[in-house]
Amino acid sequence: MSDSPVYTLACDLIRRPSVTPEDAGCQQMMADYLSRLGFTIEPMIFHDTTNLWARRGTEGPVFCFAGHTDVVPPGPLEKWHTPPFEPTLRDGYLYGRGAADMKGSIAAMMVAVERFINAHPDHQGSIAFLITSDEEGPFINGTPKVVDTLEARGEKITWCLVGEPSSTALLGDVVKNGRRGSITGDLKVIGIQGHVAYPHLGRNPIHQAAPALAELAAMQWDQGNASFPPTSFQIANIRGGTGASNVIPGELDVQFNFRFSTELTAAQIKQQVVDILDKHELEYEINWTLSGHPFLTAAGDLVDATVAAIHSQTGRQTELSTSGGTSDGRFIARTGAQVIELGPVNATIHKLNECVKLSDLELLSDVYTDILRRLLA
Amino acid sequence: MSDSPVYTLACDLIRRPSVTPEDAGCQQMMADYLSRLGFTIEPMIFHDTTNLWARRGTEGPVFCFAGHTDVVPPGPLEKWHTPPFEPTLRDGYLYGRGAADMKGSIAAMMVAVERFINAHPDHQGSIAFLITSDEEGPFINGTPKVVDTLEARGEKITWCLVGEPSSTALLGDVVKNGRRGSITGDLKVIGIQGHVAYPHLGRNPIHQAAPALAELAAMQWDQGNASFPPTSFQIANIRGGTGASNVIPGELDVQFNFRFSTELTAAQIKQQVVDILDKHELEYEINWTLSGHPFLTAAGDLVDATVAAIHSQTGRQTELSTSGGTSDGRFIARTGAQVIELGPVNATIHKLNECVKLSDLELLSDVYTDILRRLLA
Repeated sequence: MSDSPVYTLACDLIRRPSVTPEDAGCQQMMADYLSRLGFTIEPMIFHDTTNLWARRGTEGPVFCFAGHTDVVPPGPLEKWHTPPFEPTLRDGYLYGRGAADMKGSIAAMMVAVERFINAHPDHQGSIAFLITSDEEGPFINGTPKVVDTLEARGEKITWCLVGEPSSTALLGDVVKNGRRGSITGDLKVIGIQGHVAYPHLGRNPIHQAAPALAELAAMQWDQGNASFPPTSFQIANIRGGTGASNVIPGELDVQFNFRFSTELTAAQIKQQVVDILDKHELEYEINWTLSGHPFLTAAGDLVDATVAAIHSQTGRQTELSTSGGTSDGRFIARTGAQVIELGPVNATIHKLNECVKLSDLELLSDVYTDILRRLLA
Repeated sequence: MSDSPVYTLACDLIRRPSVTPEDAGCQQMMADYLSRLGFTIEPMIFHDTTNLWARRGTEGPVFCFAGHTDVVPPGPLEKWHTPPFEPTLRDGYLYGRGAADMKGSIAAMMVAVERFINAHPDHQGSIAFLITSDEEGPFINGTPKVVDTLEARGEKITWCLVGEPSSTALLGDVVKNGRRGSITGDLKVIGIQGHVAYPHLGRNPIHQAAPALAELAAMQWDQGNASFPPTSFQIANIRGGTGASNVIPGELDVQFNFRFSTELTAAQIKQQVVDILDKHELEYEINWTLSGHPFLTAAGDLVDATVAAIHSQTGRQTELSTSGGTSDGRFIARTGAQVIELGPVNATIHKLNECVKLSDLELLSDVYTDILRRLLA
């Protein structure tokens, strides 16, 4: 097993220290590999970020593998059992930064594509790769810019499989078929500073805000739906006061975040928050940052093929989920593409001693091949 | 007027830069002065703090003038119209740090005592001075230690007049016959840190605390009484969160302060707060700092003499008040003494260009003399 093509490719990728936004040659290696398989290679470089768009075929439908070659920093090196950029196989697990998130997935994709093309050299439609080195960073010059470029020239992705580590305990047990939206509010409640001994001369913004915050925290924003958990609200930061125990603060700063379902829009959330703040007669300023709208890929070709391929290769019934943080899938979904995320077990991602079960990578590659077969053979 | 004894003494005191806990010779000057009037002088030095206990007579009742020779720092010198430690008379006002708080009062006391003794060399009871240089500081080695020393040897003060600037618009318009208590609570609400995308794995202490804080802020603690305004609660500081918008904080720190009337005890306040926190099922730690119990000098010899003397010398009806911050009066009141505060207009205390109307100091000295006459002649 340890001289399998998936293992060899994964080790080659892990050995390159591609901490965001560095690519460290990962994409060039992929380009060489895919080029030999008949892909047209198109590097897309925006400022400091290297992206790869590769496509085999000119017709639709377009099946696209999406992912990233960048990794998060390794953290303190002395706390790793083995050097993070020296791939190490131990007890069936491959250790190294990016092993699970998501160089292992990329290796599995490349081998899956090679196998599929060898079996079906004249497959229907097209196969593509959309790879960025900016997924773990500010996601400005990565996937969004590639998607914009494709959109501008009318190039459409039909089905997109993102290789993010979606599995929780066993390979394929969970597939992400959407993500919640995320919006952050920065609220400043304005009072009047004063001495605590003379409360009638001040106006305490903490006192004024407390019932409004209690109401926001207790609110049921929606019930969620079959695909999404209920929208959640969390206050992440709160700060008010001069530090002195005898001064009524003049201002209170509160930062909160919503993870929201497709039952609500960002505009509806903003309006409901403002209504509550106004009902409590607060004097305030508020600024909003929208990180992403929610998206959902409902039952259809891609979901059906994925569920069937997982069952066929692993014997497992997969769970469709929209939980977790944001991913680059949201940028691709907004073009109308069907988007699904399927990758290895995510238990060690972003942690010390990140690892992946090597047999899971082999199995993942088989599932990817099976999906391609169901959609393009 | 500008060569009056009150003016001369006030200038002598202001000229000494006695920023807490420095005394800069103020008390030695007072000791020399009072010694000539037949006072027994007893310096009481505790660590870095100089205090003066001076007494004329050995019998009771004991009438004690209390006050402090220390001043708060002048702040930026260039913002003073005249140097803060060079007493300057302009348009009838004496300028300088401590002019109103409370070197002017001390000068008025000294002259009042001299006049009274000249007129009544064989007065009843005793006259005393309790002067500290630690009133504006941490009040550890000042009045509390002097009071402890007197208590330990069974020496009792019957009536105490503190020279703090109690007047608000006109000399004698307000006399303080008590003060509210002050207690501060430092509350730490404990939650479970987590990622905002997985709220079921965390427990947000801000969310849990908000309804409890709203209830504390809305609570009517008491109605006050004839002598005290209602007890007030103010949150002075609140702080929670890591700074990141996607992290549920693990802890919330809240600091609040009560100014409380004689309708409540510190123990009752603590119990009510704990009851509310427990009702909201918070996990928390709380630490309390009691700065002072409330005290009240109800109608009696001292209040009667003071009200009558003010009316006689100024024609004004004085108002008895317990408002404002804490003062050293609280340490003397706990011995059972009647305590009242009467001093000049407090509009400029602790500010740049502190000043006092010189004619008010003369009038204040006359009121002090009149009070002595009513109680000890």
